[in-house]
Amino acid sequence: MIKIGIVGYGNLGRGVRGALERNPDMELVAILTRRPVEVKNEVGDITVVTLDDQGASVDIPVDIMILCGGSKEDTPQQGPLFARSFSTVDSFDTHADIADYFQRMDVTAREHGNVSIISAGWDPGIFSLERVVGDAFLPGSKGYTFWGPGVSQGHSDAARKVTGVADARQYTVPVEGVIEQVRRGSTPDFTKREMHKRVVYVVAPDVSEHERIRKEIVGMPNYYADYDTEVLFITEEEMQKDHSAYPHGGFVMTSGLTGGNNRQVLEYRCQLSSNPEFTGSVLVACARAAYRLKQNGARGAFTLLDIPLGLLSPHSGDALRGSFM
Amino acid sequence: MIKIGIVGYGNLGRGVRGALERNPDMELVAILTRRPVEVKNEVGDITVVTLDDQGASVDIPVDIMILCGGSKEDTPQQGPLFARSFSTVDSFDTHADIADYFQRMDVTAREHGNVSIISAGWDPGIFSLERVVGDAFLPGSKGYTFWGPGVSQGHSDAARKVTGVADARQYTVPVEGVIEQVRRGSTPDFTKREMHKRVVYVVAPDVSEHERIRKEIVGMPNYYADYDTEVLFITEEEMQKDHSAYPHGGFVMTSGLTGGNNRQVLEYRCQLSSNPEFTGSVLVACARAAYRLKQNGARGAFTLLDIPLGLLSPHSGDALRGSFM
Repeated sequence: MIKIGIVGYGNLGRGVRGALERNPDMELVAILTRRPVEVKNEVGDITVVTLDDQGASVDIPVDIMILCGGSKEDTPQQGPLFARSFSTVDSFDTHADIADYFQRMDVTAREHGNVSIISAGWDPGIFSLERVVGDAFLPGSKGYTFWGPGVSQGHSDAARKVTGVADARQYTVPVEGVIEQVRRGSTPDFTKREMHKRVVYVVAPDVSEHERIRKEIVGMPNYYADYDTEVLFITEEEMQKDHSAYPHGGFVMTSGLTGGNNRQVLEYRCQLSSNPEFTGSVLVACARAAYRLKQNGARGAFTLLDIPLGLLSPHSGDALRGSFM
Repeated sequence: MIKIGIVGYGNLGRGVRGALERNPDMELVAILTRRPVEVKNEVGDITVVTLDDQGASVDIPVDIMILCGGSKEDTPQQGPLFARSFSTVDSFDTHADIADYFQRMDVTAREHGNVSIISAGWDPGIFSLERVVGDAFLPGSKGYTFWGPGVSQGHSDAARKVTGVADARQYTVPVEGVIEQVRRGSTPDFTKREMHKRVVYVVAPDVSEHERIRKEIVGMPNYYADYDTEVLFITEEEMQKDHSAYPHGGFVMTSGLTGGNNRQVLEYRCQLSSNPEFTGSVLVACARAAYRLKQNGARGAFTLLDIPLGLLSPHSGDALRGSFM
């Protein structure tokens, strides 16, 4: 049995816990959280440990710590802290900082004899893999990543900060027809606006403010200004009834030529009813790989690009060659 | 520069040669063939070496031999022969025999200090990977593989053996609507007939024989009897004009539940205008990985499940983390 600890118990932590129940070779040993009383009420007889800034020093019999905090403030600090005492898996997803975070984790994990798999999930993670192999199999090809339809937390949060907004949920939606265009073999340079649109559901009690709120959202630089954005006002009840799931997904497409002029199009797609539950499932499979890597003597930081993917599977190499090849 | 040899120069060998031209870190050093005069005429100033049953003993400065013969008669014999003197890459695709072939290659490659990547291509190969990670991320899920639309050599050959048939080309076609059904979240057990149909274009000069030929083809056990098969008679000119390319492709789909009852659907699709050119491109990327594995001290046989996929890429780990994650 691989002994797992969960660090941080929000939606992703719950997703990891659910995934562990479907993987009989692993067991949840402890949840580390800043809200121990609340979490203890929720999880019943699972051990709950209070998470503080010295979280890594706690003495728990865990093989792999799965870090489920946020990428902005939690993981960059908790990653190197926990990598001193445990092998870790995380879904650090600030794309621009991954190379730097990898270096920091690599140094710490090596120094303390641990394995840390970083930036796992679907993007970064599976999508990164598909981008890399698409480029390797089709040199000179064009790659496209489309996200959605699905909820973006960052964009929802940004809209929620506009004065007068009580709640907001943003859906990223690939523009219809554009994916079909790539599938049919054309490889244009799309603008951001041509690839995705944004739909924001907003709860704002004061109807006289709606037009101002709409304008502030659609004009928001970085988040909305570069896209066609639709703002729809709904009630709090509608928000809870229709928008409390976290669906997401997307497409990675690679389109290139081989030989004379033969078009080859590769496409990976995921349709997720629950983004945090799927990401949690990926992290759990990576925990298995981290455990095996460490058993095999590996040390340091790894992304999904750096590990043989057979290690993610509960089945032996022989079984995989017999039944999955 | 990684020095490459091609063993066997049919459609796949040509595909490898074309792919090498798009990968500036590799160079084609020699082609080994049983038809040296013919091949020399075709390839100009590339070194052509006569391939005989002692093929592996030839003294050529090659880092990786890419085996491009057939999986029925060539590769099972040439693989272990060449693995004694060279690191190798092949696309051995007799699915039922892969586990056994792996063992034989592993023993020989280890004994002689080489690396052999076996069964690379899109299926087996990329599709195998997608089946394995789909199953690892979604334990208890259902996996589906659909092939086509595309030409199947084995089925074309079988139809060509019917008396009175001058030429035949078989297209495997996924049944319309079935893929959409899986995408929408249903997970039935399909029969072979429900998943794929077969369309055979046949050249048979004697029109009075057409009905007998049609019946013989559609009733052929293993190849056609389990499918709805359409037989279309065409002229030799039409065959050459419309059916001389080798398009193929397919879909790997994994559909499973997480948490309470959230449906997650993963889908990998490739649409290939030229099957041998794409397979050749995959083999060339694998040659890069085999070279690096050997440099890093690895020995023995590997499938795509056993190697970190970053090794396929011409870019460094740092560059991949910076630009592809």
